[in-house]
Amino acid sequence: MEAYFDNSATTRCHPQVVEKMQQALLTDYGNPSSLHNRGVVAEGYIKTAAAQIAKTLKVAEKELIFTSGGTESNNLALIGCALANQRAGKHIITTAIEHASVYEPLLFLEQQGFEITFLPVDHTGKLSLEHLKDAIRPDTILVSVMHVNNEIGTIQPIEQVAKMVHETNPKTLFHVDAIQSYGKLRILPKKMGIDLLSVSGHKIHGPKGIGFLYVKEKTKIKPIIYGGGQQKNMRSGTENVAGIAGLGVAAECAYSDFEQKIDKLYELREYLADGMRLLPDTTINGADGRDGAPHIVSVSFAGIRAEVLLHALEEKEIYVSTGSACSSNHPAISGTLKAIGVKPELLDATVRFSLCYESTREEADYVLGVLAELLPQLRRFRRF
Amino acid sequence: MEAYFDNSATTRCHPQVVEKMQQALLTDYGNPSSLHNRGVVAEGYIKTAAAQIAKTLKVAEKELIFTSGGTESNNLALIGCALANQRAGKHIITTAIEHASVYEPLLFLEQQGFEITFLPVDHTGKLSLEHLKDAIRPDTILVSVMHVNNEIGTIQPIEQVAKMVHETNPKTLFHVDAIQSYGKLRILPKKMGIDLLSVSGHKIHGPKGIGFLYVKEKTKIKPIIYGGGQQKNMRSGTENVAGIAGLGVAAECAYSDFEQKIDKLYELREYLADGMRLLPDTTINGADGRDGAPHIVSVSFAGIRAEVLLHALEEKEIYVSTGSACSSNHPAISGTLKAIGVKPELLDATVRFSLCYESTREEADYVLGVLAELLPQLRRFRRF
Repeated sequence: MEAYFDNSATTRCHPQVVEKMQQALLTDYGNPSSLHNRGVVAEGYIKTAAAQIAKTLKVAEKELIFTSGGTESNNLALIGCALANQRAGKHIITTAIEHASVYEPLLFLEQQGFEITFLPVDHTGKLSLEHLKDAIRPDTILVSVMHVNNEIGTIQPIEQVAKMVHETNPKTLFHVDAIQSYGKLRILPKKMGIDLLSVSGHKIHGPKGIGFLYVKEKTKIKPIIYGGGQQKNMRSGTENVAGIAGLGVAAECAYSDFEQKIDKLYELREYLADGMRLLPDTTINGADGRDGAPHIVSVSFAGIRAEVLLHALEEKEIYVSTGSACSSNHPAISGTLKAIGVKPELLDATVRFSLCYESTREEADYVLGVLAELLPQLRRFRRF
Repeated sequence: MEAYFDNSATTRCHPQVVEKMQQALLTDYGNPSSLHNRGVVAEGYIKTAAAQIAKTLKVAEKELIFTSGGTESNNLALIGCALANQRAGKHIITTAIEHASVYEPLLFLEQQGFEITFLPVDHTGKLSLEHLKDAIRPDTILVSVMHVNNEIGTIQPIEQVAKMVHETNPKTLFHVDAIQSYGKLRILPKKMGIDLLSVSGHKIHGPKGIGFLYVKEKTKIKPIIYGGGQQKNMRSGTENVAGIAGLGVAAECAYSDFEQKIDKLYELREYLADGMRLLPDTTINGADGRDGAPHIVSVSFAGIRAEVLLHALEEKEIYVSTGSACSSNHPAISGTLKAIGVKPELLDATVRFSLCYESTREEADYVLGVLAELLPQLRRFRRF
């Protein structure tokens, strides 16, 4: 049996996604900027995808900018917003548990003279609204908070955060890194008060190399890539038509039969987490129940090195992650576990299991069975 | 009959490219950063592609950075080089006929305090080495010259330009926009003295949304997208594995049976150009013979608006371009025809026919026949 429980790192492309991409690559291969019919047809793929995505968020098509993925979306949101609004102030607020694609652009901005405040989180990974309120200043131009944490699955109270931001300083913009939440939670930027929202394709069974940034109408940002003026000058470069079309299909799939799929996912996550709790010397990290994402279970196994466990599981065709697999694991940036107060000896003993709509109870049983067998064996070689 | 003569705008994906991509999307869908075997397999796709590309250029795999396309490659080369070397100087030299994806990042740098010199070209579109020599100063950190012009096909004497740059100021870096030349000309960066080279996938029958930048070992540039530290920190973001794999296959295809294919392409281009010359009141723009690229024929049709001709040809299933179809045709940036001294009344009367290895003499005959028929009809409605 095989269990791919690394869906927060990346997912398998949906066959419908690949079919649509193939059509764009082989048949309707025109350049969307071409004036002739081949261009018009290619542009149609982009319009269709924009409509499919806009519908899932209840936003306008023109509020979407296609990018090369979640990382570029975050860079465009943060650097683009900072450059466009620096006359209003140079202060930006974020949390201590952001992904490297938020953290690193902010370090770059710090070098450019911006001031960044990193807010702490509690032991479940949640941001405190009081801390946030205290941090917002007249010169705060941007608050950036991730929706679902990629390592432990904690959900931030985005709607309350937005309210607090906009009430405290109506000029402050609010960016949400939704890379782990889009397709797993309902996100309604207008209702929730989100100005900028980053999404990645390959986390929702779409292709790698594509994503989008939602930018609320009239929000001022500057591009970070310059050229032919595509996408209303906000993101130059010939559009990745096949990738965009695939992303549109993936978005539509993610939000069809949504409640049903998510309930099933939560059920499976609880089943897996409950099973983990029965194993000796394990700790589940992050928030419980619906305060956590439906697809992520972070578990610390006392006395076992995560990397050793990862490779032992791999031999049984079980695929998991030690941290955030989409980062090079620079020590300074995978600080989520530290930030929530995981004991030092468990930092190196933590594994992320991440599910998708295709994951089954049989796979969960298989994983739990293998763990029950492996853990005592591995603990025989423990260092302490 | 159909004739897609807009291959400089974009090309049809090679079936082998799509096959490889499909495999990466559906079967080997791992995240290259994942520590388990699924990650290793995905990383293998990237290594294979890097090897395929490196072989065509005779460079090392580690000298390649994958990007989201030609536009990002140019942005990374120019902005990345400027930011990394600004202490050595803030002067950059380029030509008057660059693509928007070079021109616009340079305008951005100008706003950041850099000084840009735009060198004129002669009536065939060629840069003068004397002008270049005179322009290079002790604080010139970068010279950027496109290899093949996207509108008229003129080839710049890259090797002599590189020699002039490095002899005049050994510290000056030399960037080449090879987006229209890669796959059409032999490019050997080491031998030719190129420090940075931009390439796009979708111009060589690869997918849109992928490209690369060659960066000569030890050349100092800074990233423009920050995050998880992929690609040795030079380009963060989960790699577009399918796109990269497709690009590798496309590169290998482009340079297999290369001389044969290119000779055939030159033959067809001359055949088409000769046919154009026989039509009344036409002018071929750019350089003749092997001073021009094998795939581009730029023709001015006196008394006919290019856009009208484009749509008339479209009705006959002939697809061409009025300018550079990968730009939004901002008037300020499509200055190539002006820069080579095309008469004002012909600026608006110029069409680009661009071929690929699949183009045939039958298609050329069809295009010439349709033009012979259409031109007198359209000229009846001429404005002057």
